[in-house]
Amino acid sequence: MHNVIFDTDPGVDDALALLYLHKHPQVNLLAVTTVFGNAAVESTTHNALFLKQAWGLDAPVARGAAGPLQPDAQPEAWPVHIHGDNGLGNHPVPAQLDVAADPRSAHQLIIDLVRAQPGQVTLVAVGRMTNLALALREAPDIASLVRGVVIMGGAFHVNGNITPAAEANIWGDAEAADIVFTASWPVIAIGLDVTTQVEMDRHGLDALAHAGGADADLVRALSQDYVDFYLQAGHKGMVVHDCCACIALTRPELFEFEHASVRVATDGVARGMTIPKPAGMAFGPSVWDGQAMQSIAIGVDASAVLADIEKTLSL
Amino acid sequence: MHNVIFDTDPGVDDALALLYLHKHPQVNLLAVTTVFGNAAVESTTHNALFLKQAWGLDAPVARGAAGPLQPDAQPEAWPVHIHGDNGLGNHPVPAQLDVAADPRSAHQLIIDLVRAQPGQVTLVAVGRMTNLALALREAPDIASLVRGVVIMGGAFHVNGNITPAAEANIWGDAEAADIVFTASWPVIAIGLDVTTQVEMDRHGLDALAHAGGADADLVRALSQDYVDFYLQAGHKGMVVHDCCACIALTRPELFEFEHASVRVATDGVARGMTIPKPAGMAFGPSVWDGQAMQSIAIGVDASAVLADIEKTLSL
Ligand SMILES: [Ca+2]
Ligand SMILES: [Ca+2]
Repeated sequence: MHNVIFDTDPGVDDALALLYLHKHPQVNLLAVTTVFGNAAVESTTHNALFLKQAWGLDAPVARGAAGPLQPDAQPEAWPVHIHGDNGLGNHPVPAQLDVAADPRSAHQLIIDLVRAQPGQVTLVAVGRMTNLALALREAPDIASLVRGVVIMGGAFHVNGNITPAAEANIWGDAEAADIVFTASWPVIAIGLDVTTQVEMDRHGLDALAHAGGADADLVRALSQDYVDFYLQAGHKGMVVHDCCACIALTRPELFEFEHASVRVATDGVARGMTIPKPAGMAFGPSVWDGQAMQSIAIGVDASAVLADIEKTLSL
Repeated sequence: MHNVIFDTDPGVDDALALLYLHKHPQVNLLAVTTVFGNAAVESTTHNALFLKQAWGLDAPVARGAAGPLQPDAQPEAWPVHIHGDNGLGNHPVPAQLDVAADPRSAHQLIIDLVRAQPGQVTLVAVGRMTNLALALREAPDIASLVRGVVIMGGAFHVNGNITPAAEANIWGDAEAADIVFTASWPVIAIGLDVTTQVEMDRHGLDALAHAGGADADLVRALSQDYVDFYLQAGHKGMVVHDCCACIALTRPELFEFEHASVRVATDGVARGMTIPKPAGMAFGPSVWDGQAMQSIAIGVDASAVLADIEKTLSL
């Protein structure tokens, strides 16, 4: 059983990932923590609460960071052309909900839950890494208390998606991502190298809604504009980035990994770039030296991942 | 016929490249300009003059930059474990030579020669790009007056060799390299993606010396420690980085190229990284926008390159 804290910025693909975790028989969803990214944190928190209500989640939702660690960072423009004005594909979300956020901050809830179950909790983080970095900063002990960390983020041997160098989750808080990659906890990074291969077309989305009932139909409904975005960008369907990170937890055998220490560029044109130093490769002295070796996905069985999503949502 | 200014930091593989240009029937070597890198510029200039004397070159040798554009850069440690204490593989080089350097600076000689033969001169640069950047800064008109620029530098889809991010020629003056890549002249970049595949073992070096007589035998003699370095690093022989750039000029069909605009990271952990934005790929607005499209080698017929070296040196 995987005890999971899901750190997220719903976000269309975040919604699918959340339903996957909720439905999966080997996942015990402990909490949902929210972060800015696909929209302002007010929106991503409201969206997470909406999904909690719609799907009847027991897990608390705690609001997290509104912006990156670096206080003087340029405010981001939200990616409304991808995730809609409300962060949930412009799907109508009621302003009033019957559920409310946990009073604790996201990073405090992470600290509390990790300390409460030493060695038992996996963090699955599919937005900016700010909450994880804040938790590490306040409670460095959690690095040795988590079972593991799985992130959706990075572009290791491929171009980014927000600049040629950077993937959006990393670019949006590069300092936080560098903290997460260099902490002494085991990180599994699911980046664009693999996620862009996992494309769900409208046929697949319809099949998902058919197999998964009303819960999955909500995913279908809120994903329509997101599918259009990816089709226009030359993909065969919507890229299910965040769900890939969840499946790397439940079905790691569907991915191929390399082992490397990773530093994140925080300055200049490379900002947000995830730069691996492969195991066993020698260079001159560098800031990669002595850093934790992490696992980076470099291959994926995309059709098996799509089949696993359909199977899990139909349970 | 290619009218070539060879900008170089000899350097063991620089020496082979210089002999290749000298011997090639379709190359007219106009000048040799020197730069710091494999050793201090005093050494690389002395080595270039030694090779001019040994091989009877007509081309003048002009001394160039002693350090990078950025005046407050940390002084480099010379790579004595690769190119020897004297920059020429510890091969004995007499202190007194019968030839002297041109009185002009390297970048002034570049400007003068390019302006004297508009559209006729190709710059082949196989060291730090400082001289080229200084020439561009002082005479921006040369960007439209050169026939082309071929560089050995960069690591586009592979790790670097001085840090996980950076190849040494770029890392040693990242600001200069960014100026060279974003100038409105056509750059062909021969980086580690291809050069590391072109390995000459001792057998090949002996064959070269046999076929090429005394001139090639000097290359063999001064390359011995360099071969050892690469064998210990896991290669099958010495990597003939710089000669690959010369062959990209004379035999471009032996390489496969992609077209991309390139920016060089100048800050932080990514310093010296060459980041391509492929043609036709969309991202958000970025500092790659509107920059010149350059040609980046991504494939090479290594055995044909080695055969071309042996053939050319035996002429
Ligand atoms: Ca997300
Ligand atoms: Ca060189």
